[in-house]
Amino acid sequence: MEQPHAPVAAEAGAGAKAAGDAYTIRPLELSDLSKGFCELLAQLSPSPPLSEDAFRARFAELAALGADHLVLVAEEAATGRLAAAGAVLVERKFIRRCGLVGHLEDVVVDAAARGRGLGERLVRRLVEHARGRGCYKVILNCTTELRGFYAKCGFEEKNVQMGLYF
Amino acid sequence: MEQPHAPVAAEAGAGAKAAGDAYTIRPLELSDLSKGFCELLAQLSPSPPLSEDAFRARFAELAALGADHLVLVAEEAATGRLAAAGAVLVERKFIRRCGLVGHLEDVVVDAAARGRGLGERLVRRLVEHARGRGCYKVILNCTTELRGFYAKCGFEEKNVQMGLYF
Repeated sequence: MEQPHAPVAAEAGAGAKAAGDAYTIRPLELSDLSKGFCELLAQLSPSPPLSEDAFRARFAELAALGADHLVLVAEEAATGRLAAAGAVLVERKFIRRCGLVGHLEDVVVDAAARGRGLGERLVRRLVEHARGRGCYKVILNCTTELRGFYAKCGFEEKNVQMGLYF
Repeated sequence: MEQPHAPVAAEAGAGAKAAGDAYTIRPLELSDLSKGFCELLAQLSPSPPLSEDAFRARFAELAALGADHLVLVAEEAATGRLAAAGAVLVERKFIRRCGLVGHLEDVVVDAAARGRGLGERLVRRLVEHARGRGCYKVILNCTTELRGFYAKCGFEEKNVQMGLYF
């Protein structure tokens, strides 16, 4: 996950594009494959270019989850290229009276677009989506270096993440 | 998440009930509401008793996810009561060639059944499900006290978990 490197403006909860805003934050669209989506994700984790078919198939699988899965992207007005992306997955539990939990995943800001508060805007939009779905919390895993960024977005450190790789 | 308090037997990958086994590990069933499912979950997190309707509704929502969501329980042969439970949710990503990630959630072993390796058996069964689905990793969040238990199950500490509560 990537982090802005300068103080961010107070843009939390902004709707779509603000007047004069250089970026529009909106749900992922099929046309985004040609707007640099995979190149953006490659800054986060190994993400070789996807074929049109593979992208469409995954897009459809996620669309079938309805509002339980949302990918947001930030499109740069000047270039039409994607400058940031992030996702939230809503998990349905039995605990806490069949509670819902939002999982924040795969947040990335293009290296050239950092330091403008874009990451925080995107994260806050994803959090608001989870809140709107009725989640009692949103959780995420990040490196220790990103704790400060997510603290600025309203998160607190809770536990440790463990992983098992196949 | 709860942890056995004694060395566990090498029961990894066991199928259903082994010969003479005191517990059968199997997918959650509708009849489990009356076998102590909510009482078990309450040992993990606040989980007031669910109505039959609420339980059935959530069960159906999760069943609609097919093999992308699995809740396993351990039923004690002698009593017909549930002694452990845990879940795995498969997340569909775009990164890593549309990779899949298993999220291990809500693992709990009844206080009276700890120290018999039941938690590790259950976790390994959930991990095997994720592997079988093609996940490239399984991740979980836990308290620092449970790192040792999950290390025994094959997990390594990776990152920090952050949370935002509504």
